[in-house]
Amino acid sequence: MSDPGSRIEDLVALMARLPGLGPRSARRAVLHLIRRRGTLMAPLAQALAEVAAHTRDCSICGNIAEADTCDLCRNPARATGEICVVEDVSDLWAMERGGAFRGRYHVLGGTLSALDAVGPDELGIPRLVARVADEGIREVIVALNATVEGQTTAHYIAEALAPTGVTVTGLAQGVPIGGELDYLDDGTIQAALRARRSLQG
Amino acid sequence: MSDPGSRIEDLVALMARLPGLGPRSARRAVLHLIRRRGTLMAPLAQALAEVAAHTRDCSICGNIAEADTCDLCRNPARATGEICVVEDVSDLWAMERGGAFRGRYHVLGGTLSALDAVGPDELGIPRLVARVADEGIREVIVALNATVEGQTTAHYIAEALAPTGVTVTGLAQGVPIGGELDYLDDGTIQAALRARRSLQG
Repeated sequence: MSDPGSRIEDLVALMARLPGLGPRSARRAVLHLIRRRGTLMAPLAQALAEVAAHTRDCSICGNIAEADTCDLCRNPARATGEICVVEDVSDLWAMERGGAFRGRYHVLGGTLSALDAVGPDELGIPRLVARVADEGIREVIVALNATVEGQTTAHYIAEALAPTGVTVTGLAQGVPIGGELDYLDDGTIQAALRARRSLQG
Repeated sequence: MSDPGSRIEDLVALMARLPGLGPRSARRAVLHLIRRRGTLMAPLAQALAEVAAHTRDCSICGNIAEADTCDLCRNPARATGEICVVEDVSDLWAMERGGAFRGRYHVLGGTLSALDAVGPDELGIPRLVARVADEGIREVIVALNATVEGQTTAHYIAEALAPTGVTVTGLAQGVPIGGELDYLDDGTIQAALRARRSLQG
């Protein structure tokens, strides 16, 4: 690590492991950073080190937390008796940006996959079942991606929660706001037609 | 900075300033990093801090250096009497990947621009003229981008070097290797035709 070339190459190799960056764009990003050593590179190094040192998984919901539990799990205003099950923290962030859900979350960290040996235990589904009783949950909203893996996992979760008697719901499927029928896939149009609703009040 | 949300948001904002990353992909990259705190995030923070602390501009050529001068300027094997003038360190890297040039470089750090108040002094052109005499340079290869700005700057450099008597050359323009005429712009085809060469040995 004494050769500057190799030190920079090491950095490029690390940057290239970020999603959305390949070797070429990683090299461009590193050059961009080196030109802004003081104003961007050093602060970025500092911010990365801080977040790496101070974040962990929330022991209750799996969200990113700075303490043992996350802000949402500690917030008494969010004890609404509703849990929203999401695949990933990025989905939790998307739900929070939407701002319509005021309850708590359960982050699976993936979907069931026999190929990748991801079973219910890896996704914390037994922990979810336990939370329903412990926290007096009335409704579990399964907000998984509308993919085969997501829907298979959603089905499994609904089965696992059946003995608890909790209401289990899923997100509606249909035409996205602003969506044009001409650009939608056939499956979405079929789903929207099946779930059609009355417009007469 | 005690709220984990704002700490992560600060990191996302810094990441979004990298070329090729917007707010959305920066958020995805940060999540990707948080999931790999130990294996990727901490090493990346360390690598960034090291490069930020240990790199500077080479006082001779403007390349990235770890000492006062860069590896290329210190390498006696590269004292070939040739200097290749490039706009940016990324162009120097591109030339080095090509592996065909064995001399030394001069990195301008930009092109002449009246609008942005970039004059010959900002680009180190007087320093280049001085190097030609000091280092016994026989040929200056001006490898600037084939854009209006690049070619204007190349022309200025050729004029500035005229009194030294050094040979000033530019990269050939023509059809790129593997290029198909049908996909080339008119200007390239015109340039390739004007610079046509004999195929008869």
